[in-house]
Parts: sequence; C-alpha cells; structure tokens
Amino acid sequence: MEEFSAGSALSALAERPGEGGITKEQLLLSGLTHSVPNAPLQITKQTNVTPGLRYRNLGKSGLRVSNIGLGTWPTFSPNVTEEQAEQIIVLAVESGINVFDLSEAHSGTRAEVELGRILARRGWKRTCYIVTTKIYWSTRSEERGLSRKHIIESVKASLVRLQLSYIDVVIVHKADPMCPMEEVVRAMHYVISQGWVMYWGTARWSPVEVMEAYTNCRQFNCVTPIVEQTEYHMFCREKTELYMPELYNKIGVGLMAWSPISMGLSQGKEEGSMQLFSRSSFRNKYSSFSWTEDETAAANKDGYGWMKERIQPEETRRQSERIRELNAVAEKLGCSLSQLAIAWCLKNESVQCLLLGASTVVQLYDSIQSLQLVPKLNTNMVAEIERILENKPSRPPMVSTLALR
Amino acid sequence: MEEFSAGSALSALAERPGEGGITKEQLLLSGLTHSVPNAPLQITKQTNVTPGLRYRNLGKSGLRVSNIGLGTWPTFSPNVTEEQAEQIIVLAVESGINVFDLSEAHSGTRAEVELGRILARRGWKRTCYIVTTKIYWSTRSEERGLSRKHIIESVKASLVRLQLSYIDVVIVHKADPMCPMEEVVRAMHYVISQGWVMYWGTARWSPVEVMEAYTNCRQFNCVTPIVEQTEYHMFCREKTELYMPELYNKIGVGLMAWSPISMGLSQGKEEGSMQLFSRSSFRNKYSSFSWTEDETAAANKDGYGWMKERIQPEETRRQSERIRELNAVAEKLGCSLSQLAIAWCLKNESVQCLLLGASTVVQLYDSIQSLQLVPKLNTNMVAEIERILENKPSRPPMVSTLALR
Amino acid sequence: MEEFSAGSALSALAERPGEGGITKEQLLLSGLTHSVPNAPLQITKQTNVTPGLRYRNLGKSGLRVSNIGLGTWPTFSPNVTEEQAEQIIVLAVESGINVFDLSEAHSGTRAEVELGRILARRGWKRTCYIVTTKIYWSTRSEERGLSRKHIIESVKASLVRLQLSYIDVVIVHKADPMCPMEEVVRAMHYVISQGWVMYWGTARWSPVEVMEAYTNCRQFNCVTPIVEQTEYHMFCREKTELYMPELYNKIGVGLMAWSPISMGLSQGKEEGSMQLFSRSSFRNKYSSFSWTEDETAAANKDGYGWMKERIQPEETRRQSERIRELNAVAEKLGCSLSQLAIAWCLKNESVQCLLLGASTVVQLYDSIQSLQLVPKLNTNMVAEIERILENKPSRPPMVSTLALR
Amino acid sequence: MEEFSAGSALSALAERPGEGGITKEQLLLSGLTHSVPNAPLQITKQTNVTPGLRYRNLGKSGLRVSNIGLGTWPTFSPNVTEEQAEQIIVLAVESGINVFDLSEAHSGTRAEVELGRILARRGWKRTCYIVTTKIYWSTRSEERGLSRKHIIESVKASLVRLQLSYIDVVIVHKADPMCPMEEVVRAMHYVISQGWVMYWGTARWSPVEVMEAYTNCRQFNCVTPIVEQTEYHMFCREKTELYMPELYNKIGVGLMAWSPISMGLSQGKEEGSMQLFSRSSFRNKYSSFSWTEDETAAANKDGYGWMKERIQPEETRRQSERIRELNAVAEKLGCSLSQLAIAWCLKNESVQCLLLGASTVVQLYDSIQSLQLVPKLNTNMVAEIERILENKPSRPPMVSTLALR
Repeated sequence: MEEFSAGSALSALAERPGEGGITKEQLLLSGLTHSVPNAPLQITKQTNVTPGLRYRNLGKSGLRVSNIGLGTWPTFSPNVTEEQAEQIIVLAVESGINVFDLSEAHSGTRAEVELGRILARRGWKRTCYIVTTKIYWSTRSEERGLSRKHIIESVKASLVRLQLSYIDVVIVHKADPMCPMEEVVRAMHYVISQGWVMYWGTARWSPVEVMEAYTNCRQFNCVTPIVEQTEYHMFCREKTELYMPELYNKIGVGLMAWSPISMGLSQGKEEGSMQLFSRSSFRNKYSSFSWTEDETAAANKDGYGWMKERIQPEETRRQSERIRELNAVAEKLGCSLSQLAIAWCLKNESVQCLLLGASTVVQLYDSIQSLQLVPKLNTNMVAEIERILENKPSRPPMVSTLALR
Repeated sequence: MEEFSAGSALSALAERPGEGGITKEQLLLSGLTHSVPNAPLQITKQTNVTPGLRYRNLGKSGLRVSNIGLGTWPTFSPNVTEEQAEQIIVLAVESGINVFDLSEAHSGTRAEVELGRILARRGWKRTCYIVTTKIYWSTRSEERGLSRKHIIESVKASLVRLQLSYIDVVIVHKADPMCPMEEVVRAMHYVISQGWVMYWGTARWSPVEVMEAYTNCRQFNCVTPIVEQTEYHMFCREKTELYMPELYNKIGVGLMAWSPISMGLSQGKEEGSMQLFSRSSFRNKYSSFSWTEDETAAANKDGYGWMKERIQPEETRRQSERIRELNAVAEKLGCSLSQLAIAWCLKNESVQCLLLGASTVVQLYDSIQSLQLVPKLNTNMVAEIERILENKPSRPPMVSTLALR
Repeated sequence: MEEFSAGSALSALAERPGEGGITKEQLLLSGLTHSVPNAPLQITKQTNVTPGLRYRNLGKSGLRVSNIGLGTWPTFSPNVTEEQAEQIIVLAVESGINVFDLSEAHSGTRAEVELGRILARRGWKRTCYIVTTKIYWSTRSEERGLSRKHIIESVKASLVRLQLSYIDVVIVHKADPMCPMEEVVRAMHYVISQGWVMYWGTARWSPVEVMEAYTNCRQFNCVTPIVEQTEYHMFCREKTELYMPELYNKIGVGLMAWSPISMGLSQGKEEGSMQLFSRSSFRNKYSSFSWTEDETAAANKDGYGWMKERIQPEETRRQSERIRELNAVAEKLGCSLSQLAIAWCLKNESVQCLLLGASTVVQLYDSIQSLQLVPKLNTNMVAEIERILENKPSRPPMVSTLALR
Repeated sequence: MEEFSAGSALSALAERPGEGGITKEQLLLSGLTHSVPNAPLQITKQTNVTPGLRYRNLGKSGLRVSNIGLGTWPTFSPNVTEEQAEQIIVLAVESGINVFDLSEAHSGTRAEVELGRILARRGWKRTCYIVTTKIYWSTRSEERGLSRKHIIESVKASLVRLQLSYIDVVIVHKADPMCPMEEVVRAMHYVISQGWVMYWGTARWSPVEVMEAYTNCRQFNCVTPIVEQTEYHMFCREKTELYMPELYNKIGVGLMAWSPISMGLSQGKEEGSMQLFSRSSFRNKYSSFSWTEDETAAANKDGYGWMKERIQPEETRRQSERIRELNAVAEKLGCSLSQLAIAWCLKNESVQCLLLGASTVVQLYDSIQSLQLVPKLNTNMVAEIERILENKPSRPPMVSTLALR
C-alpha cells in the first residue's frame, strides 16, 4: 500500500497566519507536558511534519486518511470546555490528522454542534479534513430502528448540526436484523446521490453482515461501503486480525479502529487501563467494549461503574501479571503503557486509521507520539508481547465431516 | 416478528411540557367516557404506556409502525370541528400511535390541510410520526388516470397541503389497467428518489397486481412497495387471510387494514354495525367496502343510504342471528361489539397496523382499549367466534386437468 | 383501447367563473361561422361535451390525451394577434382539448413565450393540460447537433419561455445519425429524472430509429419514448398505416399525427389543399411534408412558394380528378373537404391524437366538428374513398433469395 | 466523419453588434502581423468564415467541436494582461473556435476565474461555446489523491470560479492507481447526473486505463468518457497514431491533442521549437511533455530551464539536421515551421480538436492560418516529411511463444 507523508497539509492549512492554535513548541515550553511514571516520548527535533504520520487510502477507496484520526467522544464530553475542545482539534489538525470521528455515545448530538462551530470559526479548507459521523438506532423506541426514514432523517439532522453541506463518511452503527439490507444500502446510496454524503461505512457489523451489504450493493447497483469501524486492542483481537483482512482483500472494506486505551478512556491511570483490559478479555469476540446508548446510559450512572464488574479471581491475577509485564516492556522502550498499546495497534497494517481520543491537549500530544514507537516494535519485541498476551487469535481448523467416516 | 413496546415515544414527544392535549386521566375524570350497553373497557392502572400497543416493522421494511394507526377519514369529516379533530390527533399521539392515514374519500383534500396545520402547530418531532396518504384517480375524467404525470402532480400537491418536506408512505389507490406497471413503479421510484416520499404501497390491488408491481421494480431496479392497504373484518376475510401472508413471505409486502367498524363508521350504533356487516358479506372477496369517490359521492347524497340496500330476507335473518351471538360473546368479555370486532382483527398476526377511525375523542379512546382484549381471545374464544361466523376462508383445491382424463 | 368521454374536464376548469373565453353558443350567435362552398358541420344541440371528443392513453403510457390536440404552429404565426391566439387556445380548452403541441418551425420560440403567457394569465390547473414541445437541431451550425448539451440546453430554455416547472412531453425532432443513441436516451432520461419533463417522444424518426432508441433505453435502464409524431393524410399513409401499429403493439410507442390539412395550412382554399395533396404524393414514404427550419425558411421567402413546384402534367390531371371526387364525397356528407380529410385521419384507430391547427377561432371550430363525421365513415364510405385514392399501402412481399435459385 | 463548416456560429454570436473584439481586417491593417523568417500565411480573401475550420463530433459523442480549440494555458499566464487575454478569446470566438480548454498547470486557478469573467462580460450564448477543464491531483499531499471527495470538490470549485452553471467537459488528469476505477466513474457519473457537467474525458491516461474506465462504466451503468487529451507532434506520435484510433473505433473515445508548438510554448523562436522537439524525442512514448504541477514547478524556477537539459551530442546533431530540413519544407509551402507543425497535426484524421495556445493575438492569428495549409499536405509532402522524421511508429510484431519451441 502506497503511503504519503504529511507536511503539505500543514502548509495548505497555513492560510491564516497567526491564527493557528498552540504549536508543539509552545506546548513544550509551557511545561504542559508533565511527567508520568513512564514518561511519554518527546520529539527532540521539531519539524512541521509529525514523525510517523502517514496518509493511507481508506479501504480500497480513493479517500486518503491519516493513520491516526481524532475520535471526538472524550473531547466533547461535559467536563471539557469548548475552548479546550477547540485547542485539541487545532493540535490534531496541526499534527496532520485529517479525520474527525463523531459519536453520539457520550456527548449525544453536542459533538456535532461543537465541531461544526469550530470548523466554521477556523475556516479551514473543506478539502483538508474528513468528518465521519454515525447513524445510531436502538430497540428502545419505535422511532429509532434502522430504516430509510431514520437514515435520511439522521443524515439531514447531522448536516444541520455540523453546518456542513456534506459529510465525508457516514457510519451505520450496528446492523438491524429487522431492516432488510436492501433498504439500508438503497438509503445510503440515496444520501450519497443527494450529495449529502461522500462515502459510507459500518461499525460493529459482523463480517457476514458486511458481506451481505456488499452483495446487496452489487445487486442494486449501489455504492459499496468502504470501512468498518471496530474496537481493537491487545485484548480484543479476533475480528481485526482474523476477519477484516479478508474483507479488505475481497471487497475493499477498510478498517478504522478504536480502543478504550487509544480513546483515552483510562485517562492516564494505569490501574484503569488494566481493569479495562481485564474486562475486555471476557467479552465476545467481535466487540468487547460497548458504546451504544443502552449500555453507556447505564455506565454513566456511576461513572465507569461497569469497570467494577466482578472478575474471576484467577483470571484477575493472571491479567495483573500481564499488565505488569507489559509495563516492563513500555519502560524498556521509554514510553507509557498507553503509548505502547497505541503503537501496538498502529503496527497492524490492516488498521488504516486508529482513532485517538483526548480530553486534554497533553493527552492527545502524548498519544500522537506513539507514532514514533512503531518502528521500534521489531520482530523480537512483537514476539515478546505475544508471549505475554498468550492470545494470538487463530481460526479453528476446518473439520471435514468426511474425515469422520 | 420482534416487537417493541411503546413509552419512549411519549417522552420523546414531551418536548413542550404543558402543551400536550388531554391525557387519559383527564379523560376519565371529565366524565367523557360514557356507558353504553356493553360498557367499553377501562384501563384501571394508568401508566404512560398504552397496554397492548406495540411497534412492528411494516412489511419487511425497516419502518416501525404502531399496531394501531389513526385513519383520519372520520376525523376530518364536515361535522367535526378543527378543535375536536386536533384533540383526537393529540390523544392518538399520546397513546403511542405513530401512523396517520389520510384519505380523500370523504373529506377530499381537507384532511391533508388540517392535519398539516395540526402537525405544524404542535411541533412534534418529524421523526416521531408517520404520515401515509393516497393517490386517487378515476375513470371519470381525462385528467385522473394513473400516470407519471398524475402521480407526480398528486404527490407535489399533497406535500404543499401537508406543509411537509416528505410523506412517509404514499399509497396508490387501485391499479389502473390502462397504465403500464413500469410507468407506475418508475414514477413511485422517482418521487422517492426526489426525497418527497420515503416508501410506497398500494390499496385495493389484487395479489397479482402487487406481484406485477414487484416484478417491475426488480426489472427496472426500483424501490419495491412495502404495504397493501385492505379492508378486513369478520365478514371480509378472504384476501387478508388467504393471500396477504403469501405476499408478506415472498416479497415483503405488509398489511395495513381498516374496516367499517374500526373506522367508526357505525358510530356506536350496533344496529349500524350489523347492517354494515350484513351488507359486506355479499360483496366481492377482495374488498367489500367502497371508498372511491365514485361510490362515496353517491353514498353522501343520502348519508349512509347504501346501507338501506335490499338484502335477501333469509340471509338477513341469519346475519341478525350472528350479530346477536357476537354481542353475547362481547358481553361475556365485558366489551362492546365494536371493541370485539377490533380486537378480532388485531389478533391476526398478518395485520401489522389496524387503522382506527374516530369522530370523537371518546370513540378513539374506546377503540384503543380493544388492544387489551387481544390476549383474552384465546383458542377457545377464537373457535367460538369461528363457529358463529361460519366463513373461515379456504382456497379451492387445485383441480388437475390430468385427473379428468 | 378504453376511452373516456370529456365533460368533467370543463367543470374542472370552471374555477374562475365569468373569466372563460368565448363559448360555442357565443360563436354561433356572433355569426362568426360563415358559409363556405361545402358548409361545415354545425352542432345542433349544445352541451358542454364536445361530441366525439374522447381521451385515450398516448401509446401504452398512462397519459390520457384528447383524440384531437391543438398544433399551435399556425396559431402563433405572425399574422395572428396575441388576443386572437388566446381566443383559439380558450376554444380548444373549452372543447375538451388537453394537448398543446408547440413547434419552432414557423414561429420560432415565440409560440412557447405566448402560450406560457396565456397559461399563466388563465390560471388553468396544471393537471388539466398537456404541453408538448420539441427539440430541434440542424446540420447548419456547430451549435445545433443533437447532443446531451443541446438537449439539456433546449429543455431548460423551453421551460423558461413557457414559465412552467415541467413540460409534459418533449419530442426529439429527427434523429441525428452523428449522435449515439445512448447519448440521446440518457439525456432524455436525465431531463425526466430532473423533473423537467414527464415523457418523451420522437418526430420524423424511422421505425428502425425508434426501435434503436427503445433498445438503448432497455440496455441502460432509461425511460422509453411513448410517442412518434408523424405526418398523416390521404396522400401520406405508408408509415402510419404499415409501420406504426407494429411499434405500438411491440414497444408501446403511440402516434400523434398532423397533416397540412388538419393544421389548416391550406387556409380554407380548396385549391390550396389540392395542391398540397398533389405535392405530397410525390414525397418520400415516411414524411411528405417538411417543417424543418431549413425548408420552411425557403418556403417563407415567397409564402407557400413551394406549392408552385412543378408537378408532372399527367399526375396533376389525375390528382385533380381525385380531389374533385373527394369533394363530391364531402358534399354528400354535408361537410367541407378539409373536414372530410380530418375525419378520415381520426377514423384510423392508430392515431391517438390528431393535431389540429388554426389561425382563427372559426377555423378551429370547423375542424373540431369533424369529430362528428367519424361515425359516418362506415365501411362503404371508407371503401369508396379507397377507390378514389388508389394508394392503400401494403408491404412488399418478402422475397426469398432461396426461391431464386 | 461528417463535418460542418463554420459561419453561422459567427452570426449567432453577433448579438451585440459593435461590441466584438478586433477583426481580422483590423489586425491586418494595424500592422500587427509582423514578418518572421518564414512569413506566416495571410488569408487573401476575407470572409466571415475561417477557411478550413470545421466542426466534428468529439469522439462518438454528439458534441460538436471546432477542429481547433483554444488551450488557454499561455493566454492566462502572468505576463499577459487581462485585456490582452480577452482579445485573444474574442479572436478565437470570431474565428469560429468553440472550445476553451483550461489547465491549472501554469496559471493555477486564475485561468478559470478570468475566463469566467470574460464569458460573463461578453454575454455570449451558453450554447455557442464549450468549456473543458481538468481535475488535477498529486501524490504530494493527502488532500489531493483522486477520490470521489476530490472530484466533487474540484468540480464545485471550478463552477464557482467560472461563474457557470455547468462545465461542458471535465477531464480527469492522470489516473490514480490507488483509487478504484469504480469510484472514479461513479463520481464522474454523479457530477454529470447533478447537471454540473455534460461530458467527461481523460488526459494522460494509458489506453488500458481508458478501457478500464469504459468497462467500469458499462458494469455500473455510468456515462462513458468521450475524449482523451494527449500530446501530439512530429516527435511524439506513438500513442496518437497507434493506439487512439483503436479506442475511437471500439469505444468511441475521441482525441483532443496539444503540443508544445501548437500551444505556442516556443513563442516564435524557431530555436526554441527545435530544442523542444529535440528533447521530446527522448521521452516516453505516451507523453513526452509534462505539465503536471510537479514538473512545471521545477521548470518555472528558471523559466524553460529544462530545455537546457543535456542531450546526447550525436542525437542533437541529427535533430538539428531534421529541423533544418523541416524549415526548408515550410519555406517551400510559404509558412513558418510552427504553422507546418500545426498543419501536420491537423492532417491526422484522429485528431478531432487540436488545441492552439497563444499569449498574443498575433500568435493565435498565425496559428489559425495553419488550417489552410492542410490541403497542401498531399501524399508527396507527407512522404517527404516522413522521410525527414524517420520515426513513423509501428506496433512491434506479436511474438508467438509457440514459434520459439
């Protein structure tokens, strides 16, 4: 896969000199970069190119995305001011990130409204950034099933909130077994043919559901989806590592990944990460983490209450052991455990865009530095991590019934 | 078929507190609920969920409709004031009904104008309700045959009258043997692809005509119809019970039903219902009741004059006997005959949405209570009713011409 | 073919009482109806239904056209005032005619501008009339070949001139051998899918060209043409009688016909008609009369100068004889030769709409009366006319080359 | 291929008498026509038809283009004033040229802005001229790869700059191996179906890439490209002469050609032409000259610095010899070497439109005169030139691997 280095994006953006947000230099000088147990990487030589940032085609489409994107979920959360959020967005743009992923999960529709305001205020060229947003639905009320009506109404509402004339990628969050796939692909084709949307993708769909969408697109001459958004991290590997490459090769559907760690949900507390990882390991293979309204509503009640979920004592012990060993690896590399976890995801070629989340500028800055770790994850290092994780996924062998005779 | 309980729809609608129409409590307190011979059901425990109200996918589409909808024909009739009509609409919405079905039959285009005004005044979220309206045509004048011109002109005119930017479902009322099916499906696809309409369906089409439409959609890559509207009641069963399930299973066309009783055309007078039923039993198998302009124009001349139509004496006697026995069943269940008739329709799984009509708030309220009767229609009760009706439809056996040799 | 009688169209139009144009009664009273050698038919009993006026589906489309339409070419000619033109249009509408056919041939774009103004001024319901206009092109200049560019620009310009939001039928005048048929059908489909046009048709295309268009429509899933406009009269019969029925039966393309006589080009001078007929008999089989700009430009130079074209003496003598005999038939029927010629065209079932032209109200009125002649053209009468004409077309026998061996 | 002579275009344009730019007569009188070594052709008899100007269908489309078009690259270059540029455009229009080709290569987006202003100011009928512009992308930054997003954003931006409601032909400049062809053809179909563009074509695509685009169009029922823009001159012949005729015959893709000479890049200095030719002969077979931003950026640094590129001494000597001989041919024909080179291109039937460039009125005028040279290039003359060039391209013989056994 051909890649393109950043740099000219920045100059393209330098339309309004003197108006840009904080620079990395300012950040370093301001002392904002604190020291945590495993001190995060610091770029020594400042250039206007973020080391390790690359642009890749998303799926087999022509759309070029930065290998890291900004997942705005934590950014537009209630405890981040609009000013702080804007600074995070500015840092992302100045670092060469061109993907902004929106999610209703925590912030509801506020994320779209605020991002729209920031984009309008900054006046960046529309050609320079990519906005991805989602269509949510739930089984809770009659108005929210996936349907032509819901898809069209959702997209129109998002456009209004974002103050944009089109969204780059609209992601359908979960497949609805009650809605025929033909209706979904025709509705997505409709919003694209109206000029409201450029591309479409899916999130939390099974590989078979993605294939079904593709088949329906081919049958009805509709535009095919280009991306599946999925959770991916050290303890949630099966879908990304076993099934997504096949989808990419056969039907050109790419991968945009996020994880509790890359989204900053552990908020720097290594203990949090650990529990997050621990819990993850017991969930189903396609998506271990939930950000549907249903579940997050419950989670919101007592903060990250679900983290306190009872875990088997024996598994807890082994998981703690693994976290300790991973911490040792991170220390050896001179980075934090979060940075290691992010770099480990980026190492996977199938991940065309890893979503980073941040509720502070510093957090995003630290996460971005993970890009520089990737080259250090050589064969030995990767093997070492596999040894610790003991969870390299593999497909079960095909059992021939003939063999049983 | 998965179903969804109501409730959140109400909270979604609770955007303008203090503005809602009358509540069920107010209704009960106001003494508006009168007592009729067979006193209608009263809900004892008031919650904001209407017992028995469910949401179902209409046909195999993703569109979720309440299992009862409001047929606005009697609501926007000349002897109902606009204020009364609004109260009926409000009760429907607050009961969780999300379907408003419009018909030109009696009220002409006034229904669309008035419903449009009410929707605009109330400011309900567009996502919360579903408007279905119809395309009528007649053989009377040159301007009204079914044609691309007529379909597009009708839809545009409806949008203007309704003050909406799109209609949820447009129903083509009767197939026109003179208009090629390709033209009809292309025109329906056109109004959908213009964003003026979300879905389309048919009314009073034969199963073969629906199949022909479906075939043409497949041939020309057009959006398929999702619903056939048909008359259904104890004395008009054949099409609904014998043919619609096959259409649902094979091509996903669902069923929206109405009957003279559920539409409140008998207006509480059991005598009226009886005559209605009696007359119905002599009509053709697909639709016994007529609401084309042609026939209703004649009917309007002397009110429900056609009810006085001569019926064979012997049949009249047996029909009276059946009505008497059904009344006895209703009494046993503690409901009115109308409520029994409605519940009996709702019992049929094929009926995804039964249209209720009402010219008063009380009438609608009484009809809605029928939802609670459905569970009481157990096997024994159903068998009892079948014994009374003596008209369970069955397909004639296939006669092989080979056997005749 | 089912037909529908006029009448309700008139009442539908009676939206602005007191505003209508002249009525047939007024016409009779005013003494406008003059007497010519063969006095035109007078309707004795005045009703608001024009006797013999029928509505038919155009081709196998759903569009219902009156069996006579108004060809506005002579109406919007330089020597007719705008007021006179409006009176002609009003008479047409009040007679139940719902088709207005526009042509650039003589009046250029003025016809569209004037008709647009009259339609706007009268405020007739858009659903009540059908406007057909044409796309012309010529080999004279580089800007006029048939092309996507030309088609789209022409339709847009017509809409502006007509002050309409859509044209009912756009007719492509002549096929362009230099423009691929795929481009033509895609462009026609485009203007239809934009909502600018309802249907499309052709004029002066050979049957093979119409079939080619149909084939391309099927190949690229485009809307098929519904009508071919062609010249048809006693001395130009081959295309209409031999080839058009096949196109109707196989691909649903109907027939809208015009002739020099029905268009009033002979202007009541029987001598003119005769010459017109005479000349026509020598032209090619598909279209004997020319109304391309090229030829009419030449014709305009010296009025109907082309009528003076040299005709073989012997043929002239026989043609004169035929005209004399036809005049005798007309006299027997109590009508003018023009009326006989019009009725003879209307007698042909394949002609779904015969275009009448008129530069005066009286002329149109006289032509409309021809409708009442049709039933009088019984088998004997038709046989008599065939005997006079001696030109009943027949397809040459298929010659098998095998037989020649 | 049928052709149409110019003339009526001029009269069609003569809408604003007295406003036209300079005429050819004025030009001659003003003494602007200088004498250069080989004095350019002078038309002796002035008519309002440019001798030799013809209109041809571009590819197998219905779009009729003049056989010479104006490549505006040199016209809107920094050293030409807006007034001068307008005079050049006016001369082109008055000469019957109806094609204006825009390119970002040198002038960036300024060309579109200025041409838009001139077209608006002059008020020429939109039907009379054809604007072709390009979609550029580069591998330099993340925002510019070919993609649905980039295509749509580019077209919209061009429309704004040009102040037009549609562009006649949009040319995709270079194929992007990273962007699936399906995405490109669907995006081009989209901009056409939006009414923003009439036709599309390609520039600098290989024949296989053009075939791939065509195949995808057929597969997804999209509008096919009608033209490939390519470089063509005496020393760059292979693609045009060997491969383009096949594309024309098989899939109807026509040819619009340009060359450094016809674009006036040599600016009258024969020495420059020579070097241009010389250099060209060493480049690859599909396109010897580069006008991508990448390369022109470099070229701009020191003017036409790349001309100074080292050329093999032996080849330089032979090339100089050829130029000398061609000059002798030009002298024999009474024209300049540039005019000979242009006429030689026009002689090729495959070239439906040869783009001329000019930074002065005189230069354009001289180039247009080349049209009159074409008939003089008879068989002998052509053979003579082939003898000088020694580079008639031929396909390598098919080598059968069977023969090697």
